[in-house]
Amino acid sequence: MNRYWSKRLGEITAYQAGEQPQDRTYIKLNTNENPYPPSGKVLARLNQVDTEMLRRYPDPDARLLKQAIASYYDLEPGMVFTGNGSDEVLGHVFMAFFDQSAPVCFPDITYSFYPIYCARYGLSYIQIPLTSDFRIDPDTYPDRCGGIILANPNAPTGRFLEPAQIKKLLGRNPDSVIVIDEAYIDFGGASCIPMIREYPNLLVVQTLSKSRSLAGLRVGFALGQMGLICGLEIAKNSFNSYPLGSLAIAGAIEAINDQDHYLQCTGKVAETRDWLSGCLLGLGFDVIPSLANFLMIRHASVQAEVLYQKLRERGILVRYFNAPRISDYIRVSIGTRADMQEFLRNIGEITAAGTSIGTKAVSLPL
Amino acid sequence: MNRYWSKRLGEITAYQAGEQPQDRTYIKLNTNENPYPPSGKVLARLNQVDTEMLRRYPDPDARLLKQAIASYYDLEPGMVFTGNGSDEVLGHVFMAFFDQSAPVCFPDITYSFYPIYCARYGLSYIQIPLTSDFRIDPDTYPDRCGGIILANPNAPTGRFLEPAQIKKLLGRNPDSVIVIDEAYIDFGGASCIPMIREYPNLLVVQTLSKSRSLAGLRVGFALGQMGLICGLEIAKNSFNSYPLGSLAIAGAIEAINDQDHYLQCTGKVAETRDWLSGCLLGLGFDVIPSLANFLMIRHASVQAEVLYQKLRERGILVRYFNAPRISDYIRVSIGTRADMQEFLRNIGEITAAGTSIGTKAVSLPL
Repeated sequence: MNRYWSKRLGEITAYQAGEQPQDRTYIKLNTNENPYPPSGKVLARLNQVDTEMLRRYPDPDARLLKQAIASYYDLEPGMVFTGNGSDEVLGHVFMAFFDQSAPVCFPDITYSFYPIYCARYGLSYIQIPLTSDFRIDPDTYPDRCGGIILANPNAPTGRFLEPAQIKKLLGRNPDSVIVIDEAYIDFGGASCIPMIREYPNLLVVQTLSKSRSLAGLRVGFALGQMGLICGLEIAKNSFNSYPLGSLAIAGAIEAINDQDHYLQCTGKVAETRDWLSGCLLGLGFDVIPSLANFLMIRHASVQAEVLYQKLRERGILVRYFNAPRISDYIRVSIGTRADMQEFLRNIGEITAAGTSIGTKAVSLPL
Repeated sequence: MNRYWSKRLGEITAYQAGEQPQDRTYIKLNTNENPYPPSGKVLARLNQVDTEMLRRYPDPDARLLKQAIASYYDLEPGMVFTGNGSDEVLGHVFMAFFDQSAPVCFPDITYSFYPIYCARYGLSYIQIPLTSDFRIDPDTYPDRCGGIILANPNAPTGRFLEPAQIKKLLGRNPDSVIVIDEAYIDFGGASCIPMIREYPNLLVVQTLSKSRSLAGLRVGFALGQMGLICGLEIAKNSFNSYPLGSLAIAGAIEAINDQDHYLQCTGKVAETRDWLSGCLLGLGFDVIPSLANFLMIRHASVQAEVLYQKLRERGILVRYFNAPRISDYIRVSIGTRADMQEFLRNIGEITAAGTSIGTKAVSLPL
C-alpha cells in the first residue's frame, strides 16, 4: 500500500496470469493457447498494413467487425459488443450489469478473475459449490440475485453445462443478467447464442484467443439483445472509446470469415483431447470430462504440485492451482498430437517413478 | 436506462469522440491525427508478423516495450506503465489515485473525458476556471484536494504551462497525485518527465497516437516513481491483464526507437502550425497561442458553428465544441502544408463572404 493509492485500489488484488517464462523453450500447455496457427487470411491481411491504418484513429465502433460477427451468428450488428480480449469485455460487464445492492453468483471453482472484478466494482458475491463431480447444478442457484456469471465449459474444470439447463436459470431470474462466458465453447460444446432472441437477460461472451488462435491480437466480444449491448457501449465509452486498434479489427474480420479453418483447427483439438483423455485414464489418472481445449487431471499417487514441477524440469509447462478442491489436479492445455505424445511419454515416466516412490512412502507406515 | 443496467451505469454519460464520417473523402483536421506516416521501421516490423505472435498470448507486462520507453526517457522499466492508448491509462489513473473523499481538480476547459472518468468512479470534482486568455493559473489550485490532472499543452486550447509552474503545484500538494497528461507535448512543449525522480506524486501520461503517428495501434504510457506505477499495474490487473497485443508491442518498440523520424515529423507539424497561425491572424482570426498539433481559432464576424458547417460542406472537417467559453472557436488539427493551404483558401473564401453578409446584417439596424 502506497500513500498515493486510492482506498479502492488498496482493497483489490490483481489477477495472476499463467507464467510466460523466457528462460528456455517449453512445450506450453499452461495458458490454453491454440496449437494451430490462425487463418492464413488473417496473416495475409496483417502483412498488408498500410500507414493510413496506423496514422488514423480506428473506427471506435468497429462497425465492420461487428457486421462480420453478427452475420456469422445470424444476429444484428447492434447485438454485438467488441473489446480488447474477453477479459476487457467482462470488466465492462461487471460494471454495467451487476449492482451493489445484491450479490453476484458464480461457482466456487471457476475463472479466478470473477472475484477480482467484484472487488474492483465493490460488488458482493456468493460462490456456489460445484457438485462433487465438478458439475454446475442450476438448482443450487437462487431465483433472485445481483446477476449470475457461468463459464461454459467451466474453467478450469472443462465441464460443460447443457443450454437447456441454462434456460431454466434464465427463466427463473428474469430480473437479473445471466452472463455465459463461452471462451471455450468452440471445442465441442453447444453455444447459448441461439437463445439470445428469446431472453433479454442473456449475455454471451466469447473470445478469438482460443478457437481462432488469436491470443496475441486481443479481441473478444459479447452478444445479447440491444438493451444490454447499449449498456456495454456506455460502460466502454466512460473508460476508453477506442479499445480495438485497426490491426485487431482487420485481423479479426478475416478470422471470423474463415469458418473452414477454425472448424478444422477446433476439430483437431477436440479429437486430440478425447484421445489424450483415454490414454490418461489408462495411465491411472482421474480425468474430469471436458469439452474445452484442456483437461483437468489427477493421479492416484503422485501429487499435482510434484507433477507440475517435474514436467517443468522436463520442459513442459502445465498449470497448477494451489486452491481449495482443485489442488490435487493439474490443468493441461491441448497442444498438437505431437506435443501431447511428448507430454504422455514424460508424464508416464514421472508417474511410473513417482508411483514406486509413492508406494514406498505410503507403505512404510503400514 | 434499461432495466438490466446497474445503478452506476445509469449515472454516467459516455464520451463523444470526433466524427469519423465514411460518406466521402475529407481533409480530416478534427481529431488531431498526425499527417505524416509513422516510422518506416514500424511498418517493416508489422509486415513481418508471424503466426506465433498471433497464436500466443502477449507478454502481459510488455517488458520489451517498457525497456524501450525507459531507455528513451532515461528511467527504469519499473517506472513505466503501458496501456491500450492513453485513454485506457487515464482510466486506470482515476481508479488508482483519485479518492472519493476529496474532489479531483482540473480546468473548466480541458479534455472532456476527465469528468466522465470521475462519473465512472464516483469521484467528485472541481473545475477551476482558466484565465480569460485560457491559461492555467497554478495559484488558483488548492493546496489539498483529491488529486489534480492537467493536460499540458491543454486541450482543446493548445496553451502550454511551463514545468516550473507545475513544480509549484507539486510542492504545494505533497499528499495528492498530480497527473500531467502530455498527449500533445512533443510538438514544442517541455515535458515534466525530468521532474519524476524528484516528485513521488508526479505522474506523466503520454501517447504514441499523435507524435508517433500511431493512433490506429492504440498505445499509451505513464511514467512515474515505482509506487505509482505499481498501483497502476494492480488497477490494470483487476480489469484486463493483457491490454497490449503483440502487434501493438512490436510496432511501438520500433516507433520509440526511431527518434529521428519522430523529431522530423513533429518538427514539420510545429513549423506548419506557426506558419498557419500567422496566416490566420492576417485573415482577422483570434488564435490561442498553441504548442500542440492544433489551433483554436475564432473569427471576428463569422460564427464558429457556421465555419464548421461551411468547411464540412467543402470537404474539410474541423472540430466545433458547443460548450461554455469555447463555442466561439473551432479547433483545427495541423495537417500537411498542402492540407493547410487548402484549408486557408477555403476559410478565406468563407470568411470573406461571411463578413460581407455579417457586415450587412450588423449594419441594417444602425
